[in-house]
Amino acid sequence: MIDFSYCTPTRYVFGRGVEEKVGELTAAMGVKKVLVVSGHGSARRSGLLDRVLASIGAAGVATLELTGIDPNPTDDRVYEGIEICRREGVDGLIAVGGGSAIDTAKAIAGGVVYDGDFWDFYEGTAVMQKALPVGVVLTIPAAGSEGSGNSVITRKSDMKKISLRTDMALRPRFAVLNPEVTFTLPPFQVASGIADMMAHIMERYFTPTDDCATTDRVAEGLLKAIIDEAPATMADPTDYQSRANIMWAGTLAHNGVCGCGRVEDWVSHFMEHEISAVYGVTHGAGLATVFPAWMTFMAEHKPPRVAQFARRVMDVTAVDDYEAALEGISRLKAFYKSLGLPVTFAELGIAHPDIDLLVERLHRNKGAVIGGYYRLSADDTRAIYELMV
Amino acid sequence: MIDFSYCTPTRYVFGRGVEEKVGELTAAMGVKKVLVVSGHGSARRSGLLDRVLASIGAAGVATLELTGIDPNPTDDRVYEGIEICRREGVDGLIAVGGGSAIDTAKAIAGGVVYDGDFWDFYEGTAVMQKALPVGVVLTIPAAGSEGSGNSVITRKSDMKKISLRTDMALRPRFAVLNPEVTFTLPPFQVASGIADMMAHIMERYFTPTDDCATTDRVAEGLLKAIIDEAPATMADPTDYQSRANIMWAGTLAHNGVCGCGRVEDWVSHFMEHEISAVYGVTHGAGLATVFPAWMTFMAEHKPPRVAQFARRVMDVTAVDDYEAALEGISRLKAFYKSLGLPVTFAELGIAHPDIDLLVERLHRNKGAVIGGYYRLSADDTRAIYELMV
Repeated sequence: MIDFSYCTPTRYVFGRGVEEKVGELTAAMGVKKVLVVSGHGSARRSGLLDRVLASIGAAGVATLELTGIDPNPTDDRVYEGIEICRREGVDGLIAVGGGSAIDTAKAIAGGVVYDGDFWDFYEGTAVMQKALPVGVVLTIPAAGSEGSGNSVITRKSDMKKISLRTDMALRPRFAVLNPEVTFTLPPFQVASGIADMMAHIMERYFTPTDDCATTDRVAEGLLKAIIDEAPATMADPTDYQSRANIMWAGTLAHNGVCGCGRVEDWVSHFMEHEISAVYGVTHGAGLATVFPAWMTFMAEHKPPRVAQFARRVMDVTAVDDYEAALEGISRLKAFYKSLGLPVTFAELGIAHPDIDLLVERLHRNKGAVIGGYYRLSADDTRAIYELMV
Repeated sequence: MIDFSYCTPTRYVFGRGVEEKVGELTAAMGVKKVLVVSGHGSARRSGLLDRVLASIGAAGVATLELTGIDPNPTDDRVYEGIEICRREGVDGLIAVGGGSAIDTAKAIAGGVVYDGDFWDFYEGTAVMQKALPVGVVLTIPAAGSEGSGNSVITRKSDMKKISLRTDMALRPRFAVLNPEVTFTLPPFQVASGIADMMAHIMERYFTPTDDCATTDRVAEGLLKAIIDEAPATMADPTDYQSRANIMWAGTLAHNGVCGCGRVEDWVSHFMEHEISAVYGVTHGAGLATVFPAWMTFMAEHKPPRVAQFARRVMDVTAVDDYEAALEGISRLKAFYKSLGLPVTFAELGIAHPDIDLLVERLHRNKGAVIGGYYRLSADDTRAIYELMV
């Protein structure tokens, strides 16, 4: 284990009907007027957004709305939100949705109280120290942003997608988690969410740090729970218990507990971000394609933790590390395919991937050599992209 | 899963030399004068206490001391601390030690700002809503109080030992965790700490709530990590990595993550509290004796989760639940014995246990029928105590 400092102050309010508590939780943030940030209308159609607005209003907090946030959210909506907040004297943000709504709300929250361009934080030329308070009503278990201090935004001008990580400034004050609101999600979105949360765990699991038994076991346990619960949740969208277990696992996957005491990896996310930026694919589906390819490369170059993953998470019994690793990857791919997820470029809908462009963008954005578990050059990441063909 | 609301706002600062950061962390609590609560001088002898006092002083915060807190801490020292804080205008508490120092500091923190008798909170006749801020420098991984909102105090007049659980009031603002300060702990104390943290996980693991796959897997993972790391830490007290993994597991064992979404049990703790109260044994050693007996009773009366524990944590392969449960219990006892822990009254140093007295006290203090996993009458708890003979 390496040294760490870790704090996760978000209050998780979990269960049936908990969105009724949003008003009280919002008022407890000490705010007078909030901007409610949401996506493309499914929360409105289901009645959830109206219940949330009513609950906040009943608690004596005024509301404004910013709606229609796209998947892979972009900087233009952030600027728009900052402008609204400044003009209207908004002092808090409530996101109703998944990662896109939450990450947009977070970016606005940090940008409103900053004199410069909010994008400075994402480029790393400024460090975010403060932000307006943010609360979350989660509708899609996937991004884990409801419990993290992170926010991923894409700059529209060059489709540069950057993940900002803050220690405390962007951690939500509360996250309201009602598994019932996920019953109506399309199956592909549920499956992509599962791949996304698994990736959040695996990015932390694949570490160069030795001797992380405690964090390893927590990560392996969460992966196992997600894999065990996935078939029931795909078979019956209204199966409360499997939805609940997956929702909670998605939060723990990304609130930092799986990273305590170790260096993390994140190359698979970086590689997927370029695919999303160029081809506009669903993030989780992209990750289901990248991760097995990345693992296959590692089976050749640094197999021990891939083998440990195979044995402890995928129940592989092979003694040889390389053999165990390959069998584990094969089972992981089969699992993704069982959920209807792609594991090749073609299945992802990309018939002719421009691997040159992906590699060029990746290393331009992230550096010549990248990765925590194993350091990858452009030749290496090209080899991994080619494993996805 | 059942509904829950969960928040763990403590900042964990983990690693070598982190006690140097206590001053800065204390000042960040916004306090001017703190009472530093500690035990019987080992922290002073090792130089740790002086380093902590120097760090706090250098940060511009004045210090007073309350020393000599006993294991199984008692109300008299709490009253003494409350009196000091009121007289001297203390506005924060820093505990340097294990559960006894921390729980005493917490009780003082709640008592100072309350007009009545602090014991009201423990008896349940008042609900603690606020307390002075508490920071922790942990020296003994065991009680998990550094990350919990709980405090266990014994009333000296009748040796009534009560665990107070608060949602937020008593959660420490920070916990400084340096595995190196545990190198000099006596082996029996290390072993007892391991039994204590395992019990914190198992009290939550043995639940009547079905469908807790995510929380189950986290709990099982933590238990497995502790069991795997224990031999190395007993063999070499200066093995940083095993001490680090066990220390971190001890915090996660009791910060609530293993209880999310389910009813907990806690009968083994209640049964041990009476043994501690009457015979003054070490809490963790008492738990190593009670838990296998409790599980043996459950193998007869409600085996499923004992069997799951046996298979997933103790690697038992038996198909029959009863058979698996018994084999798991046998392996758990063997594990405790390998650490030098007692698993019978005699090994605990109690040649002639007064089981009548223990049963009478237990049900007088806790009610006629007790337990979350399985409801136990006085006849049942008597049978469990008898399994320890």
